[in-house]
Amino acid sequence: MCPGRTFVQAGFFYGLLSSGRGDLVREARFRMATEQSPRGDAAPDQGARDADNPRDSQIATFGADKPLKLDAGVSLSPFQIAYTTYGTLNADKSNAIMVCHALTGDQYVAQVHPVTRKNGWWETLIGPGKPIDPARYFVICPNVIGGCMGSSGPASTNPKTGKPWGLEFPVVTIRDMVRAQAMLLDQLGIDTLFAVVGGSMGGMQVLQWAASYPERVFAAVPIACATRHSAQNIAFHEVGRQAIMADPEWRGGRYNLEGTNPRRGLAVARMGAHITYLSDAALHRKFGRKFQDRENPTFSFDADFEVESYLRHQGITFVERFDANSYLYLTRAMDYFDLAADAGGTLANAFKGTPTRFCVISFTSDWLFPTSESRATVHALNAASARVSFAEIVTDKGHDAFLLDEPEMFGIVRGFLEGASRARGLTAKK
Amino acid sequence: MCPGRTFVQAGFFYGLLSSGRGDLVREARFRMATEQSPRGDAAPDQGARDADNPRDSQIATFGADKPLKLDAGVSLSPFQIAYTTYGTLNADKSNAIMVCHALTGDQYVAQVHPVTRKNGWWETLIGPGKPIDPARYFVICPNVIGGCMGSSGPASTNPKTGKPWGLEFPVVTIRDMVRAQAMLLDQLGIDTLFAVVGGSMGGMQVLQWAASYPERVFAAVPIACATRHSAQNIAFHEVGRQAIMADPEWRGGRYNLEGTNPRRGLAVARMGAHITYLSDAALHRKFGRKFQDRENPTFSFDADFEVESYLRHQGITFVERFDANSYLYLTRAMDYFDLAADAGGTLANAFKGTPTRFCVISFTSDWLFPTSESRATVHALNAASARVSFAEIVTDKGHDAFLLDEPEMFGIVRGFLEGASRARGLTAKK
Repeated sequence: MCPGRTFVQAGFFYGLLSSGRGDLVREARFRMATEQSPRGDAAPDQGARDADNPRDSQIATFGADKPLKLDAGVSLSPFQIAYTTYGTLNADKSNAIMVCHALTGDQYVAQVHPVTRKNGWWETLIGPGKPIDPARYFVICPNVIGGCMGSSGPASTNPKTGKPWGLEFPVVTIRDMVRAQAMLLDQLGIDTLFAVVGGSMGGMQVLQWAASYPERVFAAVPIACATRHSAQNIAFHEVGRQAIMADPEWRGGRYNLEGTNPRRGLAVARMGAHITYLSDAALHRKFGRKFQDRENPTFSFDADFEVESYLRHQGITFVERFDANSYLYLTRAMDYFDLAADAGGTLANAFKGTPTRFCVISFTSDWLFPTSESRATVHALNAASARVSFAEIVTDKGHDAFLLDEPEMFGIVRGFLEGASRARGLTAKK
Repeated sequence: MCPGRTFVQAGFFYGLLSSGRGDLVREARFRMATEQSPRGDAAPDQGARDADNPRDSQIATFGADKPLKLDAGVSLSPFQIAYTTYGTLNADKSNAIMVCHALTGDQYVAQVHPVTRKNGWWETLIGPGKPIDPARYFVICPNVIGGCMGSSGPASTNPKTGKPWGLEFPVVTIRDMVRAQAMLLDQLGIDTLFAVVGGSMGGMQVLQWAASYPERVFAAVPIACATRHSAQNIAFHEVGRQAIMADPEWRGGRYNLEGTNPRRGLAVARMGAHITYLSDAALHRKFGRKFQDRENPTFSFDADFEVESYLRHQGITFVERFDANSYLYLTRAMDYFDLAADAGGTLANAFKGTPTRFCVISFTSDWLFPTSESRATVHALNAASARVSFAEIVTDKGHDAFLLDEPEMFGIVRGFLEGASRARGLTAKK
């Protein structure tokens, strides 16, 4: 949320500099907030390098003998998964926790991000003394298939052509992501995960893990998510995709080959999505109708209001680190997600006879994945006779709450994992 | 809402035609749903003609002696207002009702639209036997200043240059729109309006009328609106503006001069905004996760889901009839709207001593202008000792409910105007 940051004030991609009467308008050159990136801008070839060889990551490769069979009916082979780990796997390999990232997350969950130089996206939850302590657990965080930080995705090099996949990369699903993660687990020699934890799209993966591999998941913590994407959520995603595809620099997805980059479209997509991550109350509390560094309106299309500057900043910084095609693929995967449909129309059947114990968490002000969705998940788990605890946390921070300082969430995750540890026979220290 | 319409199915601006594996992608040419327009497409010069000389409209012109003094500190002169009327003004000129349109509305409130050939946007409320019956009232519906259907706006010809204003048109406010409408009323020789009625941005104008000209408004019906635009609403508008300005065909607002048209950006803006006009429940009821004319996903970026096709249709048809710069100006006017700020920070002062009687209406599922906003308006009116009635209508249709078949709304408006008619001494028939 960048507290204390000075947001970009001037016109966004087109700098609209007005005299205050709208009679002087100039186009400014494209502005990128590059000052925070150690590697300068995010030129396509730069992004492609991270897409194939991400910094500060481990990579698992899967050759022709181990194809990834996709829901689309094709196989991906060869492919790779970029991932990070924290802590040490214990002797009986019973202390592994898989952390699944959200739409625009990646494997840098508990370490500085190589592009943004920001702290890991879930260092509030994972780290020494935190609810998921690497001194106790072996934490694995993979970049999802379809992502752009080293796992095979549209920005990766297609080994058959030596060029970026672009839209020739097959469309993947949440189930495909989890299928690939299970293959990573095989390669790591781990049979059963002590826990799978994630929020938003990460939470979808948690639920998919429990549905696809119930015997491999001892405990599951799906946070701020649902077992299917709603019509409204599909609609918001579709607007983001159209914003990207409407950018002439998208070039039918071939921008990496043609030396262009649909930054503008991707930034607009991010701006729109970002509103859905916050609550009306949070926006009101943070920004209200406050003007940006001035007393009165400019009567122009400058960013008069702080909330405008904030959103522009979100858009501009996002395109530094994310691939536009990857955004298309991952939003599509979320849209397709529908555990009940996969289970013949009855959600409870997705979890029938599950041995996994669940801790479902939602937030009162989350309107992207409202509590009603988590409650539906809990009802289905009850119907499947699963062990499930459920917490709705009161906060005005909206969907983003799962990434923010929410002591109640930390306490719940800590307590749930403690109990599960005892049930699993994990000692306090390895 | 286009019931029964076949939505556009194929790829949007880029037609993404996939083999089902994402390995065949072609760019299709720009598609416009032109078949419904009697004048073919909406080429810039076409739009400019409607912007200066709208069909099926009356036009009031205001010369150098009657400048419009704008909040931005400049005057607009000469300028014009396009408007429609229905019914006959009675002898003592006491039966006039001003109907104010919303962001993307216009003066074609109760007649076929000359571009879209669709019925008037509020024929459910206005017409023979309807709550606002032209047999009884003299209805005036002006296009707002800053609009694009004949009232002076960025698409109009700047008389000083003979070319479209573009971004050289001064930024206008809701108060400026109402100021211009008051000048129209002067020209029509009408001292006092029997009523002012409008929803959304139209409701803002209603409230502004009551605040600016209390002695000229006998009754006011602000529907689904607020006395100020919230941070979240400003944020959504800003995303739409950025989508337009990110379109290279926008050309810094000079597209009318350069023979381009930022259709893609405007369509994306419309798609995003349209989601906010509906409720999650309405989207779920209408579309859910239903696929478009197929049983299974295509594993592509085609419009698999009905809700995607619907949104694309909304975007494509909107650009036929609306000017991109006008969209920038009108969203800005809504963002700036803040009656309390204009009244020294206390909302009640905006209505102090008002003689107007109010009927405030909100809808339970409207999350763009939720009931809490209308309640704040009512509280301020109470504090100002105004006559006010308030109705929250239970519906799942969201913000758009004010434009739809809402019998309860019709009944409330009818009853309120009946009572006000008696108080005003209007007979049942002129």
